[in-house]
Amino acid sequence: MTKHDTELLVCVKCRRGAEEPENGIRPGQALHDALAGQGLPEGVTLRPVECLQNCDHGCSVALRGGPGRWTYVYGNIDENEHLATLAEGASLYHESADGLIPWRSRPEHFKRNCIARIPPLENDNG
Amino acid sequence: MTKHDTELLVCVKCRRGAEEPENGIRPGQALHDALAGQGLPEGVTLRPVECLQNCDHGCSVALRGGPGRWTYVYGNIDENEHLATLAEGASLYHESADGLIPWRSRPEHFKRNCIARIPPLENDNG
Repeated sequence: MTKHDTELLVCVKCRRGAEEPENGIRPGQALHDALAGQGLPEGVTLRPVECLQNCDHGCSVALRGGPGRWTYVYGNIDENEHLATLAEGASLYHESADGLIPWRSRPEHFKRNCIARIPPLENDNG
Repeated sequence: MTKHDTELLVCVKCRRGAEEPENGIRPGQALHDALAGQGLPEGVTLRPVECLQNCDHGCSVALRGGPGRWTYVYGNIDENEHLATLAEGASLYHESADGLIPWRSRPEHFKRNCIARIPPLENDNG
């Protein structure tokens, strides 16, 4: 089985419920740019997206990794506080077979800020 | 281009934040069963799933339809009130090229209860 790359999707349009920032750089874009600057674990690709429509609980990211994995949407992401959490979470996701990060190793922010998840395409579980 | 089927995923574990019902049939399961009984538009497949992790705003469904379409998660679904809305929304989604239902034809409940969306796999938009 080929291991699929993991995508870390970042909503770059997120204003986190506030007005357009004076400097024109929205929190979602700042989050994306900070992640791009930090670099991500092996096998994880950063991808800017227009809007994940989780506007009430931004900033927002999603983790996706091929037809055999659950896709997860996480919210309430801070572009300064959560960079290491996102790198760690993306790495754990990428290491998983089905996208499920065991609860005990799951980053605390992921435990409490999962907005939704979408099942794999290839899945007999229901 | 082959037109992909549309999946209407229903979280059958949803308790809508309440205790286990006395009759043992959770609202999510009741929603699924009612949709199965009603039937769905041509090209739309109903699929029960274990948990979409939108537990604060259940019941929950998702619409998915191949690598070229956005996937949408909708919440606050009522198993009695929203059956026709779901059939209509699934049909409109299925007719769309990319999963976007034009705002004017979008069901009212979909306008106000989108929990999140995930971009297509094949997309140059960011």
